[in-house]
Amino acid sequence: MIGPGGWDTVAAAAPVREFEEDWSPAIFLRNYWYVAAWSEEVGREPLQRWLLNEPVAMWRRRDGTPAALADRCPHRGAPLSNGRIVGDDIRCGYHGLSFCGDGSCTAVPGVETLPAGLSTRAYPVVERWGWIFLWMGDPALADESAIPDYHWKDDPGWAGRGETLPVAVNYELVRDNLLDLSHAHFVHRNTLATDAVVDAPVTTEFDGERLRVIRDMRGIEPSPFFKRLCGFNGKVDHRQQVEFTPAANIVISVRVNSTENPDHAFENRVLNAMTPETDRSTHYFWSLERDSQLEDEALTDAMFTANRDTFFEDVAVIEAQQEMLDRAPEPARPVRWHVDKGVDRAQRWVAKLLREEAAQCAAAAEAG
Amino acid sequence: MIGPGGWDTVAAAAPVREFEEDWSPAIFLRNYWYVAAWSEEVGREPLQRWLLNEPVAMWRRRDGTPAALADRCPHRGAPLSNGRIVGDDIRCGYHGLSFCGDGSCTAVPGVETLPAGLSTRAYPVVERWGWIFLWMGDPALADESAIPDYHWKDDPGWAGRGETLPVAVNYELVRDNLLDLSHAHFVHRNTLATDAVVDAPVTTEFDGERLRVIRDMRGIEPSPFFKRLCGFNGKVDHRQQVEFTPAANIVISVRVNSTENPDHAFENRVLNAMTPETDRSTHYFWSLERDSQLEDEALTDAMFTANRDTFFEDVAVIEAQQEMLDRAPEPARPVRWHVDKGVDRAQRWVAKLLREEAAQCAAAAEAG
Amino acid sequence: MIGPGGWDTVAAAAPVREFEEDWSPAIFLRNYWYVAAWSEEVGREPLQRWLLNEPVAMWRRRDGTPAALADRCPHRGAPLSNGRIVGDDIRCGYHGLSFCGDGSCTAVPGVETLPAGLSTRAYPVVERWGWIFLWMGDPALADESAIPDYHWKDDPGWAGRGETLPVAVNYELVRDNLLDLSHAHFVHRNTLATDAVVDAPVTTEFDGERLRVIRDMRGIEPSPFFKRLCGFNGKVDHRQQVEFTPAANIVISVRVNSTENPDHAFENRVLNAMTPETDRSTHYFWSLERDSQLEDEALTDAMFTANRDTFFEDVAVIEAQQEMLDRAPEPARPVRWHVDKGVDRAQRWVAKLLREEAAQCAAAAEAG
Repeated sequence: MIGPGGWDTVAAAAPVREFEEDWSPAIFLRNYWYVAAWSEEVGREPLQRWLLNEPVAMWRRRDGTPAALADRCPHRGAPLSNGRIVGDDIRCGYHGLSFCGDGSCTAVPGVETLPAGLSTRAYPVVERWGWIFLWMGDPALADESAIPDYHWKDDPGWAGRGETLPVAVNYELVRDNLLDLSHAHFVHRNTLATDAVVDAPVTTEFDGERLRVIRDMRGIEPSPFFKRLCGFNGKVDHRQQVEFTPAANIVISVRVNSTENPDHAFENRVLNAMTPETDRSTHYFWSLERDSQLEDEALTDAMFTANRDTFFEDVAVIEAQQEMLDRAPEPARPVRWHVDKGVDRAQRWVAKLLREEAAQCAAAAEAG
Repeated sequence: MIGPGGWDTVAAAAPVREFEEDWSPAIFLRNYWYVAAWSEEVGREPLQRWLLNEPVAMWRRRDGTPAALADRCPHRGAPLSNGRIVGDDIRCGYHGLSFCGDGSCTAVPGVETLPAGLSTRAYPVVERWGWIFLWMGDPALADESAIPDYHWKDDPGWAGRGETLPVAVNYELVRDNLLDLSHAHFVHRNTLATDAVVDAPVTTEFDGERLRVIRDMRGIEPSPFFKRLCGFNGKVDHRQQVEFTPAANIVISVRVNSTENPDHAFENRVLNAMTPETDRSTHYFWSLERDSQLEDEALTDAMFTANRDTFFEDVAVIEAQQEMLDRAPEPARPVRWHVDKGVDRAQRWVAKLLREEAAQCAAAAEAG
Repeated sequence: MIGPGGWDTVAAAAPVREFEEDWSPAIFLRNYWYVAAWSEEVGREPLQRWLLNEPVAMWRRRDGTPAALADRCPHRGAPLSNGRIVGDDIRCGYHGLSFCGDGSCTAVPGVETLPAGLSTRAYPVVERWGWIFLWMGDPALADESAIPDYHWKDDPGWAGRGETLPVAVNYELVRDNLLDLSHAHFVHRNTLATDAVVDAPVTTEFDGERLRVIRDMRGIEPSPFFKRLCGFNGKVDHRQQVEFTPAANIVISVRVNSTENPDHAFENRVLNAMTPETDRSTHYFWSLERDSQLEDEALTDAMFTANRDTFFEDVAVIEAQQEMLDRAPEPARPVRWHVDKGVDRAQRWVAKLLREEAAQCAAAAEAG
């Protein structure tokens, strides 16, 4: 139990931004890599997926490399993904224009000589660790070194499984859910609940590149999840680190060990890529990875299922939250306390990055 | 049949208000008691209900008294009603803030000392006659003596039954339907129809507190409803009184007696509380009460069922009407005649009350 | 294959109109006859149909002639079509006002003397060739000689069948689909596809009354449709003429004959009346007529089914196109080439007619 003082007191919040004027969930960070698909979703049949309010057509060339174009034919506006892959190119299913992965038009039916420069928008695309990443902003700025680190997904020292969860909320509500794990005590009463998560002090670390929210809980009762799946009986030490990197990536590192016998330990990573589909829907790509009992498929199944059931509980809460944010007027005095540290830090950071990106765009527009 | 003259002539209506500019179905009278629920709907599990475009969470304390709060947590906006009742309080299901029925925050998880004044909006609530009434405006003005009179619902001298009908229209269309019962001849052709209802003179009485629309029909053929359920065979005298009190209450008093034998009489009350849910949906609480054959449950059943089937006919008509008002342009020359007296009086009255309430709010805002 | 030059080159299109500012799919040509129903749909029960965003009630008088009124009672706005036909008139199902086919109010329940001029809007209506045509603009301008020619529908020298297809797009996308039949090669790969349709030169003819798009394909491989249903084996000559007349009528004339044996020929007409229901939905009335084997019902069935399956393919494409036009931003460089001649000519023509009609309305408003 935390005494009064600073963040440890409940306070009327200084709003991060003016909701009425400043805050638009339609504004997404653009100059970032977003997870767009699982590797196995993209093949020789076109895949349509909406990302950041934009329709994207994805497919693989004959050599297996993925390609991604704006999914709207510049001729009449039909979605290219309704067409077919012919060789390396995608051919519109309406009047047959073809485009290759760099966006160039490669064929216009009935026309011999194509004019130079006829093209549509291409998205830089990189396949890594079993996910397809798309750069949603200025292609000239795309930099592969900025791809968020999800290496655990195919690191031979780790094992696990994940899926995509469609969530009918702005991606921020998914992010904020993960940045304040005190909700576990209330939302996940039968799986992850522990008194400690609401009482433990919260540390935040921010270095301009990543934001970390850390809870170090010593000698606590293990949550039902770790009791059941990892065989902890007595008291445990439980350390949570939630690391956020823009635009929409969170890696949760959990280490639980027996307080009496610190060598009896379990460690996992929950990978969370929350890619906006629209202002009010999110492709929530997640995977749960562990570095022990790698061959134990039954454990993989059990952990996947437990985590997924837990996420369904989150989805129910945040979809109800989204409805209230949309339909009901803003309360006069929003409150914040120590559990909110991470959420508020992330909100301020992303607001700043959005302003910087807007300024960058304005400067580029003026220059160009 | 009424001859020409005044209201008895069809006339192009002087519009009650300018539809384009003045009339907004989003404007509800606020400083009034509205029926929010049946007593049995509110218990130890939270109930969410939207009223006047606002989400409300209702529950009962341990002593059985009802409580009602704005159903949006001031922390992150989640609906409190997704949480649980703990003792007398409601606890948010997301991060665990608790509130008691007066709106005060009673617990913040992990925080020892709460700041003074941390609270959310509470609605004055009164339980009476089997209904839960909420005051939707300024709590300082809530006055129990202003609760609309529905005492028949649990008066031992009366018996009956009712239910809530969800209707996808602005509440005004439900009200106006009841204020012009001439529709019975056309909408309820097989139950309540009688030629007299369209021909009989209409009297309106208005004393600044209540509006009454009265039809006194002597020596008429009884409608199928009264023939079948009350055994009237010959001619009857049939008196209807529709009494409207703001914001949205109507009590219909009906007395039918044999013209030949005035002691063979039947009397009932139809109670109608038309609480807005949103601009385009209404919780229509109704009950049909009679003062005779109190023990006859089969008669209660038969009357309830007949009335409900009749109301389903109304719902079909007014939902179609709402669609037209929303989708089709205003006709050039709306017409009104004697059957419209009550509707127009009510519309003008409520428009005046809305203006007064707006002025009152503006004055309060200036003063405070 | 067409070489470069003029329309035969792909070019960034000079937009027909500014999409953001000028172009509103809500603007329909009004002073035209539109197909509103099949004869057999209109009878002694009222039919409600939305046309050009307006609700219309249609029925037949006792002598069988059709009538059409605005489907909104001037009393309280209920749809007249929810009422009943009494004699020649339609009676509102809410409070019983009656109207005859010219729009005059013929009865107000309980009122003896009606004021002069009490009426609602009537639509000029003509039944011809098995279709009901409505004039959607100024009744004073309605001119039966302007009814679009669909005489093949009941010409004894022709046989065929059709239906109404509901399509969730603005009617323009249906029209444009038909004005550029090069889509057949891609959308209808298994039925109407032929290389020739994309390679053949396109001729347009425009005389201020009608727009014709003509493809004359000599010595080509017949499409699967004509192979299967008309028994063409060797090369054929295939002439398509797509004739558009405003507001929304297209007659496609097709003649196919064996190149070797020109007397082995088949000729049909596809009649297409694309009546807007709303901005985003269309009643697509079509019929396929031929002038040979008139008694062969099995052939009628086979051709009807084949054509309908083909149209389902079109609907899938243009509904996807509509979604993109609505949800995705305009591409920077729309492209056009020779296949687009007809579409662009029609778009410019209709834009001009809309401007003229707007000017006409403005002048009338000033004068009147």
